[in-house]
Amino acid sequence: MNTPAIYHRPDSEFAYLYKDNLMHIRLRTARGDMKEVALIHGDPYTLQTDHWQEKASPMKRYLTTDLYDFWTIELTEPFKRISYAFKLTGNDGITVFYGDHGVFDFEPDVYNSPDNYFRMPYFHEVDRFKAPEWVKKTVWYQIFPDRFANGDKTNDPQNTLPWGSKDPSPTDFFGGDLQGVIDHLDYLQDLGINGIYFCPIFKAKSNHKYDTIDYMEIDPAFGDKQTFKKLVDECHKRGIKVMLDAVFNHMGDNSPQWQDVVKNGENSKYADWFHINKFPVTYQDTGFDEAKDITYDTFAFTPHMPKLNTANPEVKEHLIKIAKYWIEEFDIDAWRLDVANEIDHEFWRDFRRACDSVKKDFYILGEVWHSSQGWLQGDQFSAVMNYAYTDSISKYLLKKQISADKMVSDINDQLMLYRDQTDQIQFNVLDSHDTARLLTEAGDDKDLMKQTLAFTYLQPGVPCIYYGDEFGMDGGNDPDCRKCMVWDESKQDKNLFSFFQNLINVRKNNQKILSEGEMVWEKVADNGLIVLSRQLNGQEVKIILNSGQKAQTVSNDREIILSNLIENNNQELTISPKGFALVK
Amino acid sequence: MNTPAIYHRPDSEFAYLYKDNLMHIRLRTARGDMKEVALIHGDPYTLQTDHWQEKASPMKRYLTTDLYDFWTIELTEPFKRISYAFKLTGNDGITVFYGDHGVFDFEPDVYNSPDNYFRMPYFHEVDRFKAPEWVKKTVWYQIFPDRFANGDKTNDPQNTLPWGSKDPSPTDFFGGDLQGVIDHLDYLQDLGINGIYFCPIFKAKSNHKYDTIDYMEIDPAFGDKQTFKKLVDECHKRGIKVMLDAVFNHMGDNSPQWQDVVKNGENSKYADWFHINKFPVTYQDTGFDEAKDITYDTFAFTPHMPKLNTANPEVKEHLIKIAKYWIEEFDIDAWRLDVANEIDHEFWRDFRRACDSVKKDFYILGEVWHSSQGWLQGDQFSAVMNYAYTDSISKYLLKKQISADKMVSDINDQLMLYRDQTDQIQFNVLDSHDTARLLTEAGDDKDLMKQTLAFTYLQPGVPCIYYGDEFGMDGGNDPDCRKCMVWDESKQDKNLFSFFQNLINVRKNNQKILSEGEMVWEKVADNGLIVLSRQLNGQEVKIILNSGQKAQTVSNDREIILSNLIENNNQELTISPKGFALVK
Repeated sequence: MNTPAIYHRPDSEFAYLYKDNLMHIRLRTARGDMKEVALIHGDPYTLQTDHWQEKASPMKRYLTTDLYDFWTIELTEPFKRISYAFKLTGNDGITVFYGDHGVFDFEPDVYNSPDNYFRMPYFHEVDRFKAPEWVKKTVWYQIFPDRFANGDKTNDPQNTLPWGSKDPSPTDFFGGDLQGVIDHLDYLQDLGINGIYFCPIFKAKSNHKYDTIDYMEIDPAFGDKQTFKKLVDECHKRGIKVMLDAVFNHMGDNSPQWQDVVKNGENSKYADWFHINKFPVTYQDTGFDEAKDITYDTFAFTPHMPKLNTANPEVKEHLIKIAKYWIEEFDIDAWRLDVANEIDHEFWRDFRRACDSVKKDFYILGEVWHSSQGWLQGDQFSAVMNYAYTDSISKYLLKKQISADKMVSDINDQLMLYRDQTDQIQFNVLDSHDTARLLTEAGDDKDLMKQTLAFTYLQPGVPCIYYGDEFGMDGGNDPDCRKCMVWDESKQDKNLFSFFQNLINVRKNNQKILSEGEMVWEKVADNGLIVLSRQLNGQEVKIILNSGQKAQTVSNDREIILSNLIENNNQELTISPKGFALVK
Repeated sequence: MNTPAIYHRPDSEFAYLYKDNLMHIRLRTARGDMKEVALIHGDPYTLQTDHWQEKASPMKRYLTTDLYDFWTIELTEPFKRISYAFKLTGNDGITVFYGDHGVFDFEPDVYNSPDNYFRMPYFHEVDRFKAPEWVKKTVWYQIFPDRFANGDKTNDPQNTLPWGSKDPSPTDFFGGDLQGVIDHLDYLQDLGINGIYFCPIFKAKSNHKYDTIDYMEIDPAFGDKQTFKKLVDECHKRGIKVMLDAVFNHMGDNSPQWQDVVKNGENSKYADWFHINKFPVTYQDTGFDEAKDITYDTFAFTPHMPKLNTANPEVKEHLIKIAKYWIEEFDIDAWRLDVANEIDHEFWRDFRRACDSVKKDFYILGEVWHSSQGWLQGDQFSAVMNYAYTDSISKYLLKKQISADKMVSDINDQLMLYRDQTDQIQFNVLDSHDTARLLTEAGDDKDLMKQTLAFTYLQPGVPCIYYGDEFGMDGGNDPDCRKCMVWDESKQDKNLFSFFQNLINVRKNNQKILSEGEMVWEKVADNGLIVLSRQLNGQEVKIILNSGQKAQTVSNDREIILSNLIENNNQELTISPKGFALVK
């Protein structure tokens, strides 16, 4: 038995409240090492009288990675508190006890000692990580405002270029605005999305607006507060939720606060609003958005984005007032937090409380590209931009950089980093304003794009469409991924649009299974056939996809709810390469 | 190589800020599995231009448990942010890369990919776990007020028994009070302690006062606020810190709030102050402090201690007001939190902030007997009652239940559960009002007691003397461990008292090494010889102890600063069983 590979961490994603008084407990063991695992458990105050080990509860081998098996169990205890430990029997026939003081032979003086047990001392609803139901039901649509639609020519910034007249440079303006979004809400409703994630809309200098000048003002090139209020109202009328982008890690260097520091140095009343290592604040330009010898902390090495000191109570109050203002006055439903990982946890705890205090079931989405357990314990974010998860899909299906087994391993690994209810509301982005577009990553192959989308929509977590993907827009990395939305109907791929509509419908019609269902990898074959089933309370939705080079035939007696590149004859399904079928 | 045993968790005790901008990073591998481990690291925004893997920093093999080796490194980065991963070379000659997406062959496409690295996105001082310097310098003394000294006969409760007239029952009163403590502060100063931890002093019915009736009043049998104010002032004059016991998990059933619930049921304005499952609140008595069919949540199964609903904002406000009151009005230095593990994390986060807001370097000590990572991330407690740590000492030296190797393994395991700065202020109790006394655990063997104490005082973490241990008081489990303090000089062990004085002096004179020094297990021999050295900046304090059956001789050229049962001839130290030498 590989005892050093056994791992559990109390009071974490390995042991947590899932729903009211219902606990999930996980255990990690070396892959293929254990024959069976059981949980020995009881009320912490009854071990002396009860004989817990006589009624151990079997755990289920759930997800497997290249190195590990993960075992799970769902259970409760009548007095809302639990002591627990693990009884493991290896394939070598050895049985051990694993608890709060490590691994022991399975013997009475071990399992009868209360100190050897892990504890969840009380089931506190207030500490439970909560996943709003509405988020699970949402399909997001991301809008980069300068590039979605120009609904009001009067607010166009100077030097606005004709819509779609060229591939964008980092500094171009094309006149997109909020009225443009309002004008296309019927379109979005027709597409079927029910949440919009807006890249920043506050007053800033650049086209991307990540260099905020004033968080309390809509950028004049995008419209005004009245327009924004109307936008939110119109969205809500249509059942569409609204998420704004909060750039709280740094400010633009054109902001009055930073300009005051530039002017007054250490005597500025904003001197402590930033992380300044030496006055006066200076730097040596080394190119676009890069510099050296910067005397203050910045985002990356960008002198135009001085980092905010979010531990300063004044700054914190300022930013949290902003966060509440847009919820209270405009009724937004979610904040997406830019560069969220570089801001302190204490700030995010206050932020979470502030948002919760003004709106129930508020969704807080952090931009974190790496493992995010530190932010997803329930006291900070609801979810992160789940690049780490969707990257594994993209690396296998699109880029062919990894094997199918590795993709499955990576997906399972990511799922086990967080609580089940967290996984259900993670933000599964295949592309965004920060990455190349999906179609481009797919080598302009729309079949491959469809297969990738279908597979992604079958994952737990909520999908997001980057504006224009639905019409087959392409584009490499920033700024190429930020082209103007194609409103010229002759250039829109209507077939792809219909595909998106259908896929969104599938997602909505099977939302509960797709959110909460178990992941069952029925087949991950060398020939490229992959079958992933999602199962909940006896119901099932399944994807059968062919990622190989040759057509594959499988038997099927289920209803096909969406497919591409398949033939269906006499309960036999022939799937061409890049094809897939979603069955129910 | 045992790859499934490799473990790291970002943003945890495995990767944290130790001091200003100084990070500690740890890695766990299977014991004896690795030849060397190095950290590959750099600024997250420079991987493309820098070649991190070419300048990997070697990590040090630090502590070893029965299953694991722990590797550590201390480092910083100029821009206060870091990406890092591990390069591991096994004893089998294989080299692998371990990072945020698992274990890979050590190849360029792996180590050149930024996503494969763990991140500490920014070094936030506000999130750093802080250990107050004064705590490191403290030797605590625990007082159970009814049993320490009776300084004021006029406040004795009814039926007060003559001092020390019998072994205590669970319900006896002996008249100890705050004036009694004041009267003996010179004594305590003479002993050398510089912190007093008081069991509860607030108004309650029992002798132990864990069933609080009124948190805003001193129990009249102990004195009044004026006396308490004088006590704190007198302590502070002598450089003695004061820690009170906060019982916030439950109230006594004689409290007006609970009595209101008893009387008014669900119409009581306090109905939501508790966790009530069914009205009216009832139970079936089954013996002393135990009942069944209790219709509300309680501490253990004790109907007299109804559990408080600390998620109720009114309750939270009430309790936090109390916490601040005793700091602001009486200048206490620390709170010890009773049954701290059964209260929600959100409450403790507010509690931590409230205490910090009124006093700098405030110490918050939680009663948690099991692994406590969830409370020791910096946002909640400063430390826990470190029973899990001292138990391993006691199980080996006193109870002979485990081997020396197992004790060392357990100690190392406990140290690696928390950040280094946390380990330095953990509360190392060998006994308390909740356990049998040290001398009794030692089978009334004072040499064994001295050896155990000396060994414990050499650990990181701060020691605590349970009142009377210094005079050789004995006692089994509660209530036997709560006998009246022996003030009759003829019954005091003056030799033991001197030993405590000397031990405390050693601790104080070598505090920095003992707090912050590395643990170096120089010898853990089958014959019972154990040598533990603490090392800091080239300085060293060492214990050499004999836990075996026969005398052992070792060479020694260092100064002996405290010893028992040794002979010292010509640089040869002969240590009898149960003997030890502390050398410098």
